[in-house]
Amino acid sequence: MALIVHKYGGTSMGSTERIKNVAKRVAKWHDAGHQVVVVPSAMSGETNRLIGLAREIMEQPDPRELDMIASTGEQVSVALLSMALHGIGKEAVSYAGWQVPIITDSAFTKARIRSIDDAKVRKDLDSGRIVIITGFQGVDGEGNIATLGRGGSDTSAVAIAAALKAAECLIYTDVDGVYTTDPRVVSEARRLKTVTFEEMLEMASLGSKVLQIRSVEFAGNYRMPTRVLSSLTDPLMPLEEEANSGTLISFEEDTHMEQATITGIAFNRDEAKITVMAVPDRPGIAYQILGPVADANIEVDMIIQNQSVDGKTDFTFTVPRGEYVKAMEVLNESVKAHIGSGNIVGDAKVSKVSVVGVGMRSHVGVASQMFRTLSEEGINIQMISTSEIKISVLIDEKYMELAVRALHKAFGLEKA
Amino acid sequence: MALIVHKYGGTSMGSTERIKNVAKRVAKWHDAGHQVVVVPSAMSGETNRLIGLAREIMEQPDPRELDMIASTGEQVSVALLSMALHGIGKEAVSYAGWQVPIITDSAFTKARIRSIDDAKVRKDLDSGRIVIITGFQGVDGEGNIATLGRGGSDTSAVAIAAALKAAECLIYTDVDGVYTTDPRVVSEARRLKTVTFEEMLEMASLGSKVLQIRSVEFAGNYRMPTRVLSSLTDPLMPLEEEANSGTLISFEEDTHMEQATITGIAFNRDEAKITVMAVPDRPGIAYQILGPVADANIEVDMIIQNQSVDGKTDFTFTVPRGEYVKAMEVLNESVKAHIGSGNIVGDAKVSKVSVVGVGMRSHVGVASQMFRTLSEEGINIQMISTSEIKISVLIDEKYMELAVRALHKAFGLEKA
Repeated sequence: MALIVHKYGGTSMGSTERIKNVAKRVAKWHDAGHQVVVVPSAMSGETNRLIGLAREIMEQPDPRELDMIASTGEQVSVALLSMALHGIGKEAVSYAGWQVPIITDSAFTKARIRSIDDAKVRKDLDSGRIVIITGFQGVDGEGNIATLGRGGSDTSAVAIAAALKAAECLIYTDVDGVYTTDPRVVSEARRLKTVTFEEMLEMASLGSKVLQIRSVEFAGNYRMPTRVLSSLTDPLMPLEEEANSGTLISFEEDTHMEQATITGIAFNRDEAKITVMAVPDRPGIAYQILGPVADANIEVDMIIQNQSVDGKTDFTFTVPRGEYVKAMEVLNESVKAHIGSGNIVGDAKVSKVSVVGVGMRSHVGVASQMFRTLSEEGINIQMISTSEIKISVLIDEKYMELAVRALHKAFGLEKA
Repeated sequence: MALIVHKYGGTSMGSTERIKNVAKRVAKWHDAGHQVVVVPSAMSGETNRLIGLAREIMEQPDPRELDMIASTGEQVSVALLSMALHGIGKEAVSYAGWQVPIITDSAFTKARIRSIDDAKVRKDLDSGRIVIITGFQGVDGEGNIATLGRGGSDTSAVAIAAALKAAECLIYTDVDGVYTTDPRVVSEARRLKTVTFEEMLEMASLGSKVLQIRSVEFAGNYRMPTRVLSSLTDPLMPLEEEANSGTLISFEEDTHMEQATITGIAFNRDEAKITVMAVPDRPGIAYQILGPVADANIEVDMIIQNQSVDGKTDFTFTVPRGEYVKAMEVLNESVKAHIGSGNIVGDAKVSKVSVVGVGMRSHVGVASQMFRTLSEEGINIQMISTSEIKISVLIDEKYMELAVRALHKAFGLEKA
């Protein structure tokens, strides 16, 4: 008998038939005696349709007005789900973010949640109602609707769970959990029963796009136990089984220390590498190179600058492969002459492979094990970057699957 | 230099291209120095799409939840129009009803406006902004969204105009005004430059469905000058010409007294007539007949009960033709035996023709002129009913056009 928050994505809400299935699942939890708050996304395709209309009017619409439009998709979803619950005999009520209210700052289209008033919701829950709240949005101090940006419904769900001090936040999605690596690459990949939120952050940012990164940060800040689980199972499957399915993002590091050193192998196939040669080694040079790249809205991932020799150094970084040509243009046109560097060279056929694990902190030798494994497969390492709980290498794209499979085996990830 | 409210229907807002045209028209009024508030409907088809989704979930959805869904169509419209104004260099801001706020009662799907707070809107107008407000909706005392029911945007526009003490409320629609009768029936039909709000009420309820009846009542209660004009003209037509086009619903009866006695000929082709014969003439009998009809959600229009003879009377009323069969069933099954009446007879091929005019009050002889005209055409009158400013007759459907043309001519309506 606990307070539980459910979050359902656009695919789960994709048709009225699917919404009825969501209602069955929610009702099952309520029948078992839980208090349930549900945070659904807009029906799949709806947010794109709405933003498409705005872009027909103008290329760069006013963000406040864009949020007025984009927020309507979730408002339709919550009311449809409420009706579907009524249809199976449940008391339910839907709220838009401003009705709760969920207070945000005024950074329209990328707002951050400031506070959530739980009074109204708690009163409904205590009277036996299921409460359904729009994801993705809130209201600023002046009464303007503000959205949290793409994928913001995950963040809404975790924030609402934190505000209500829920026992657990369940994120229903189209994968059944977080795996040691992508099962399409390594058939032995194993679903993780638990993962720490730091590992989840590294896994998410490295391409296991299960949860929006900000929602994981929120879960971390509020130590909110958050579970990723499948929305594709039978909605009437036994509750006990469902409650233990998926992957739990936990905050109990102790339980984890006895597990394997490494939690998973993440990868990102579509990287491109750019090196600015013979860069004069003087203060501010990194900014002079990356500033124009960032101004062109190109995301930069790994960045490496080595010890300089004779006052010159090579500066290397990676960008998403789709941005490679644009990034090269920016550098050749506005950077090269300006900073007086040498040639700019690049390679658009590289991939990043990372080993991730909290256990790495207390186990030496993870790096050497990783490099030995790659060496034994004859895979050349082009770049290395490390953080406390991950080591990433950049390699030739054609060796990516081989590297992931070899590392998965070397670290014994197929074993529970 | 006045405060003007514009209202645009779903057809005018039907595509992003059309919304850009609305923006041009609005900007023209603002350029001329007016303060402008705009109340647009949802894009055509959108409200039906939304309600269709709800009906897929359940046949009779909860009205509060239905309003959560139905209100989103206008929210999209206001933001798109705001963007379109930005696109041509105008400062504009959009508000949902709850942001103004427009306070309604809690009669979801058919709410009534209680009050409108003008502070926020006035501040925006004074700082040079064009303000765009969702039609059709407001918020109740508990913060729930409530809609005004179909066509409610007309009512919103007039109510907002009244709250802001606007100089005029312009309802842009797909007809260019109110005519002496339907031009498709009488080619000499003439557009009225002005009409009193009482005449407008009679014209609207009799089938000239130009404006939602409640909006006309609102205009009447607040004496808000309201103009019906075409949204199909060139948005850049000279403002002076546009400002005098269409039909003004006025509250200056004096100017009207010198005009023609009769303002127009209204008609409704699709009526059906039902007579309950030999009804015992006792108190409560009308309710016993019409109660079950109303319970079956059948609208009743004309009602006639004549002097009784030997304690029995014939009770006749009309219903929309589409409801005729259902009404006959209700009467034969639940009414006839219960009240001990004679047979129930009906005719589903009758039409109603009405002459309407405030001038009727002070001119005798309108009725006799009407009846003589019909008699000269050999048209038999089946029922008569009268109000202060209209006389309606029920006739055989096949004579309807003939009757309308003859009356239009007899009262000299083709002459300005």
